[in-house]
This record gives sequence, C-alpha cells and structure tokens, in this order.
Amino acid sequence: MRVSVIGGGSIPPDTAAVAEELGAELAERGHAVVCGGLGGVMEAVCRGAHEARDGDETRRRDETGDGAETIGILPTDRRADANPYVTTPIATGLGHARNALVVMNGDAAIAVNGGPGTLSEIGLALAHGRAVAGLDTHDVAGVEAVASPAAAVDHVEAAVGTVSSP
Amino acid sequence: MRVSVIGGGSIPPDTAAVAEELGAELAERGHAVVCGGLGGVMEAVCRGAHEARDGDETRRRDETGDGAETIGILPTDRRADANPYVTTPIATGLGHARNALVVMNGDAAIAVNGGPGTLSEIGLALAHGRAVAGLDTHDVAGVEAVASPAAAVDHVEAAVGTVSSP
Amino acid sequence: MRVSVIGGGSIPPDTAAVAEELGAELAERGHAVVCGGLGGVMEAVCRGAHEARDGDETRRRDETGDGAETIGILPTDRRADANPYVTTPIATGLGHARNALVVMNGDAAIAVNGGPGTLSEIGLALAHGRAVAGLDTHDVAGVEAVASPAAAVDHVEAAVGTVSSP
Amino acid sequence: MRVSVIGGGSIPPDTAAVAEELGAELAERGHAVVCGGLGGVMEAVCRGAHEARDGDETRRRDETGDGAETIGILPTDRRADANPYVTTPIATGLGHARNALVVMNGDAAIAVNGGPGTLSEIGLALAHGRAVAGLDTHDVAGVEAVASPAAAVDHVEAAVGTVSSP
Repeated sequence: MRVSVIGGGSIPPDTAAVAEELGAELAERGHAVVCGGLGGVMEAVCRGAHEARDGDETRRRDETGDGAETIGILPTDRRADANPYVTTPIATGLGHARNALVVMNGDAAIAVNGGPGTLSEIGLALAHGRAVAGLDTHDVAGVEAVASPAAAVDHVEAAVGTVSSP
Repeated sequence: MRVSVIGGGSIPPDTAAVAEELGAELAERGHAVVCGGLGGVMEAVCRGAHEARDGDETRRRDETGDGAETIGILPTDRRADANPYVTTPIATGLGHARNALVVMNGDAAIAVNGGPGTLSEIGLALAHGRAVAGLDTHDVAGVEAVASPAAAVDHVEAAVGTVSSP
Repeated sequence: MRVSVIGGGSIPPDTAAVAEELGAELAERGHAVVCGGLGGVMEAVCRGAHEARDGDETRRRDETGDGAETIGILPTDRRADANPYVTTPIATGLGHARNALVVMNGDAAIAVNGGPGTLSEIGLALAHGRAVAGLDTHDVAGVEAVASPAAAVDHVEAAVGTVSSP
Repeated sequence: MRVSVIGGGSIPPDTAAVAEELGAELAERGHAVVCGGLGGVMEAVCRGAHEARDGDETRRRDETGDGAETIGILPTDRRADANPYVTTPIATGLGHARNALVVMNGDAAIAVNGGPGTLSEIGLALAHGRAVAGLDTHDVAGVEAVASPAAAVDHVEAAVGTVSSP
C-alpha cells in the first residue's frame, strides 16, 4: 500500500533518525511512501526507504504491488525541488493547498513530529477518512500515538487490512 | 479587515447560537467574514452578519473599508451551493484543498467547535502566519482559547492591529 | 450576472481601451466582473467598471442582484497583489491552476486579445459549458467572435438568458 | 524525460490507434508518460506504453533515468479511477484545475485530437514554457503540427535536448 508520511521540514537530528527508520521499515515491508517531497522529515523518510531498497537484490513489493517507491508531492511548480531520495516527484504549484494531495494519495498516514503544516495534514487525513499513527506529534483526537516506527507501520497495516508480502 | 471563521458543517443548536453571535459581532464592528460557504458554523456566522447588517441603515465598514461582506469559498464548482447568507460565493471545485484558500483570504481566523476539517484549517491558518482565536475548539498550540464571540474579535483585532471604526 | 473577462497581462494601449470600454458596459448593465485580478486586460476591465460605477448615484444591479462588483481571483497568496480597481480580491496561491476558478465563477466569459494563459481560460470556460465571446482573440471553435464590447455583452446576455434591469 | 500527453476522453478508434502508437514510441525511447489518467487518449497512450514495455526484458530508460512509467494525474480524489495502464496514479480532487498539473509535470507536451479540455492544456503548457507537438489537434500558434507519433516525439526530444539512450 501507499503510506503518507507527514512531518516538519526543519527538524533536529533525533527526529531525522526516527523518520529514516520509518522509511526503512516501510520499504522493507514493500510499501510506497508519499510525502511532501522537500526536506526534514520528508527527506529523512525517503532516504531511509532508499537505503533499505538498495540493500535488497530485488525491490520488495507488498501484495498491492506498490513497491518501495517514494512519491514527493511538491508545493512548487518545479520537479527539481524534490529531495534526492524521491523516485517520483510531482510538481503542483499549489503551495500549502498541496497538503490535501499528500494525504489523499496514501491509504493511511503516519505523522512524525511537525508544526502547523503537519497539523493541517493530520486534519486533512482524518477528513479523508484515513487512519493516522503519530510518532511524537500533535496530541489530537483520532491520532494513534505509537512508540516506534515499527508500531506505526503495524497500526496503519492493521487499519487498512494490508500486510506485507513475505 | 477580513476574518476567516472556521467550524463544523454539522453542529448542535448552542454552537449555532455562538457562531451567529460571532457573525453579528463581526458585522457590527464592520469586518467582513470569510468562510467555507456551506452549512453549520459557516451558515450561522453568515446569518448573524446578515441580520446585524440589516438592522443598520448604512452598512458599517471598518477602517480598511472591508464592510460586512460574507465571502463563501466553496469546495464545489457551483456558486449555488452557498448558504443563503453568503454575499459573495466563490466556487473552487477543489474539495478540501479549498481550506487553504479560506484561511489565506482572512487577516486572522476564529475557530468555532469543529472536527478534522476545522483542525486542518487551524493548521493552515497558523502555517500562513495568521492569528487564531478559538471558541470551544481543538486545544492546539498557537490557538488562543477565548470565552465569547466578543473576546474572539477583540483577540484578532489586537493581533492584526485593526480596530473597528466608530 | 457575473461575467468572466479573460485576457493578457501585458497589452498595448488600444487593447486596454477595448477592455476598459467592456468594463464600463458590464457595469452600466449591472453585471459583476470576474477576472484574474492582475494587470493588462484584468486591470483595464476593472477600471472601466469602476469609473462607470462612480458616475452613478446608486450602483446598478442586474436582476440577479450581482451589482457592478469586480472580483479578482489571484494566482498568488496575497490579496494585496490585486489591481486597485478590484473590489473583492480572492487570493489562491494556485498559480495558473487558478485559471479554472476564474471561468468557473462567471456565468459566461468574454476574451479580449491574450496569449497562452487566455487560451487556457477559453478552453476551461468551454469545458465548464460557458458561452464565450471573443474580441480580437484566439480563433477557436466555440468562441463567438464579436466586433465591439457592446456586442460581446449582448452575446453573453443572450446565451445566459439574463438581461440587465432597467 | 517526461512527456505530457493530452487529448480527449472520448475518441474514435483511429485516434486511439494514434495515441497507442505514440505511447509505444515514447516507451521504446525510454520516456515516461504523464497524462490525466482517465479514458480515451489517456488510456490509449498508457496502453501503448504498457505493451511496448512488456516486450522488453529490461525496461528501457532514457538518459534522465525516467523509464517508461505512466503517471496519471486524476481530476478525482480516488486513485482507483485511473485506467489500468497507469503505473503511478496521483489523485488530486481538483477537477479541471488539475490540467495545470498534467502539463507542469512533463518536460514537453504532445496533443492528440481533443476538445476544450485539451485546448486548456495546450494553453497551460505554453504558459509554462513547454514545447508542444500536435497530432490532428487544435490549430493554435505555438503548437507544432506533426504527421506521426514518431515525428511528435522527435519534435519534443529536439526541443528539450534529450535523446533516448541506445
């Protein structure tokens, strides 16, 4: 499946480590990452997915066939603004309005830390009926607070009813 | 000035009464209302502004000249979907992505109650640097919780530095 | 009714004169103007509407009550980017994607001169089923080429079935 | 590179054959297709790319590494609305406003036949400075009319300065 990963664009090193571990976990389970395509959590989660992918001879794909793709839905109108670990950059030129597209294109969402932009994405994900797991993020109704990247992926897999292929 | 009023589309009577009082307060102080144009809080705040306006011989305008207009920025592509108290309906066809436009077109925002859509608008308002006052809404950092419609308008007037004309 | 006026942002003086006359014609017949809010044809048509309005003691309104408003739907996220004759600026932050909103918010469209952006708005207006009159603009199927601003307004009034109130 | 292919959603069989040949030509030269993701030209071009790809042991990629991907940027908010030959569906929920994203995400555009929606995409492509080749489409300034799918790809390759890898 596709999982939207949302979080701040400017983050401390320990948050980057969590996001990177989350990206590796998603790629190892064969899920695609959808994010906003820029820096911070967005770059760290893509880097984690990228590195996990490279360790595999054959890229894993979950039962939906989504594979370990990293889709970056950018606020700007330039694909070149994507971080280097995005495999499929999508330019929008929509500014913050692109946040709706980030969550709409995932089957569920995982929030990592984050400020007002992430808060808006949590609201939009819930408005679109997506399950949301949260790692050290906003404490709002509807977000399942979890303690680790693996627990976050467990939560969204259970919510969507998709398990990774063996 | 223009004030974005955000809140749920399906609300209990007491919330409607608060939103209506807020609309009257904004109109009496000569401010324009920007909202999502549909029902619930959106309709109640427009109705309040409409009724306050009708009590005046001459429509009041604040020092920015915005007047007691009610702008409804709709998720659909049909102006006719606006509630009857919207003076200026704007169709967008953008779905939830129009939430960004609702807060972008106000100088500040006031949240009344509300669910995930309102949460997304709070996040977007903060991301756009707008001051946000909250009446019985989500408890998130950056939102000034206030006890009455008048206090909400006081807060956003002070934040923007605009006072109503006498 | 509301009429979307579309045309280039950088135009020669004679095109500006045509657009200004068109704005006056629309205002005198009580119609509202919807445009992209910036310079060139957009500014000239708003200026024409503004000046016609100022000559009237009471602002004329057509039978739909739309009045001689000038709505500017901007590509940027700043209302302040509107030309000075826009009465209702709407910021979008959508770039060229806002062209869809410009034509969606009119009951019909009139194109004046214009380049690729205007071509896109003609296509979008036709895709939304709007009647389109053209003054010295792209020669494409579905656009009624007319010889004067008055003829353009006659055409869209007839197509929409709205006539100005006396 | 990525090439936006734009054209009607409801087309006769001979237009479908042209679009399918175009998709095969693009895939064989290692280019990715960006389209609106629905039926008609959009489905035919994706099917052509899909079938050309399947004939290859290893998926060809041009020098930019884009590969023979088919990206479908949908007007709806459901990825499931994409035609079956889209490898990367992107839901937008933006309606016709998504046309801007279709052309923004290609390095150049090729128009095949088409009605008002295609006309709007031609205008948007030109407004974004993209080279546009046309196969039996609108006759407007800025569109290079060509006689075959191969000539269309030749034109956009020359305009962008990218040639397919051997």
